[in-house]
Amino acid sequence: MIGSLYAGHLASCAEVSVLTRRGEHARALVDEGLRISGKSDLTARVHATADPEHLPDFDLGIVATKATQLEDAAAALAGRARGATMMTIQNGLGAEELLRARGDWPLVSAVTFMSGVRHSDTHVEYELDTETWLGPYAGTTTYEQAQEIEALLVAAGLRARAFPDLRPAQWSKLIFNATVNTVAALTDLPHVGVFAAVDEPTDLGRLVRDLMDEGKAVAAAAGVELHEDPWEMNVQAVQRGETLAARGHYAHVPSMLEDVRSRRRTEVDFITGALVREAERLGVPVPLQTAMYRLVKARESA
Amino acid sequence: MIGSLYAGHLASCAEVSVLTRRGEHARALVDEGLRISGKSDLTARVHATADPEHLPDFDLGIVATKATQLEDAAAALAGRARGATMMTIQNGLGAEELLRARGDWPLVSAVTFMSGVRHSDTHVEYELDTETWLGPYAGTTTYEQAQEIEALLVAAGLRARAFPDLRPAQWSKLIFNATVNTVAALTDLPHVGVFAAVDEPTDLGRLVRDLMDEGKAVAAAAGVELHEDPWEMNVQAVQRGETLAARGHYAHVPSMLEDVRSRRRTEVDFITGALVREAERLGVPVPLQTAMYRLVKARESA
Repeated sequence: MIGSLYAGHLASCAEVSVLTRRGEHARALVDEGLRISGKSDLTARVHATADPEHLPDFDLGIVATKATQLEDAAAALAGRARGATMMTIQNGLGAEELLRARGDWPLVSAVTFMSGVRHSDTHVEYELDTETWLGPYAGTTTYEQAQEIEALLVAAGLRARAFPDLRPAQWSKLIFNATVNTVAALTDLPHVGVFAAVDEPTDLGRLVRDLMDEGKAVAAAAGVELHEDPWEMNVQAVQRGETLAARGHYAHVPSMLEDVRSRRRTEVDFITGALVREAERLGVPVPLQTAMYRLVKARESA
Repeated sequence: MIGSLYAGHLASCAEVSVLTRRGEHARALVDEGLRISGKSDLTARVHATADPEHLPDFDLGIVATKATQLEDAAAALAGRARGATMMTIQNGLGAEELLRARGDWPLVSAVTFMSGVRHSDTHVEYELDTETWLGPYAGTTTYEQAQEIEALLVAAGLRARAFPDLRPAQWSKLIFNATVNTVAALTDLPHVGVFAAVDEPTDLGRLVRDLMDEGKAVAAAAGVELHEDPWEMNVQAVQRGETLAARGHYAHVPSMLEDVRSRRRTEVDFITGALVREAERLGVPVPLQTAMYRLVKARESA
């Protein structure tokens, strides 16, 4: 879904090929084009195939699968597009290492809070037009290369910002996601006001804050100075949601809650799991994040 | 449902009146009698009314509402049955104080793990025929009086055991319930094997054990020496469940999970909430139990 937002916009200023999982998805994209509604309004012509063998060579690969499908995508790309730079955009940590294990492509790390609603194989509604943040990964690319991609995304009508080091932004999003997603998945609540409520002893916001404090301690131990405070991100997102709700919009349903409602595997291993493993490696106690991780794993098995 | 199990059995050796919430429930009981199937097989004649004014005087009142309905039941009983001894059987802590605020009846505390399935207003299936444990409450009754009730319950075909002090048993059940119920309500899992699994770092049993360890620290601070170790109770219940599952029985669905599935108010304030409040009063940190309490409260509001 995020991949479609990139593909649809980039087709206005570059030749775009889409690698899908399903053949019928690729055929529908070729036949009908890719429609983006909402914050943008366009129908893009794209190449598309479900067969990696038929993927033409390319300069920039945007790997926009869910974290849970990245292993399969990386296997499909192994040995291909040797000249390309790859950009990962998965939630959590570890996407770059996972891709890197399948090829020595130069890598750019990215995160985004863009969101959309998938209406069909060929129609995605562009909901939240927030920035894509990107930066060089582990010396395989430079800040200048990240800035070139920023310029390309902006030329395509998207919002983007390159950083010399993405980790401060990546970790801010990691802590935010590790917390908001598991709390939503367990309470069956979309990201609404109670996530920021802290007045009463039983208020959920107190747990959200305690969970984020654990995450911040891990970031500090990892030597990462956060780009944004996750608790502030939470408060702002809740306020933005309330403004939208007043105009009749539905509250944002975090992807992990969507996944447990649909009885799909969640990204918890890549988000909260990654945070818990980092905490263990660094010797930082995270009992609450660990509890949330175990609860969501158990809920997945239900 | 537990109340029906007491009423149906006691009718064999005592005159039993049932105070219901709904008039049609009382009328059906009078017209059809009360049928118990499963571990027992009987149909009992009982008096029944939904109007406290029409409740005849009695010697022993068994107050077997859910904890969430106890306040209403206590209000209905206020000023009545002045000569009676009352026995509370609610989950959690605080039922005796709540009843005591509405009348100075001598009180007997009780807990039970009996369970059943309510098939209709007049038919309950008796599932788990475990003991009712009871004891004198705060000097308002004696051990001998508790033993008399034990004898009455046993004469009625139920299993019962009187204790000079019920608190060790009450707290064992409290810690067990505070943990197993919230974990089930949040994971959507019945009480199955993973509740006792501790091999892998993500295994749910590790969280269950950590939660119970917090509860045990509170009991120790309250000067209560537990009757049974809650973790052992958990392991045994899981094993019993697996034996039953092998014979085709469904796994036990803890009441708090039933409640959240049916979008009813849960007993969490009386169980986990009571434990968290006791912990605060005694200065014992219980971060995991507090997290579970906040999550279930939030889930109730979803």
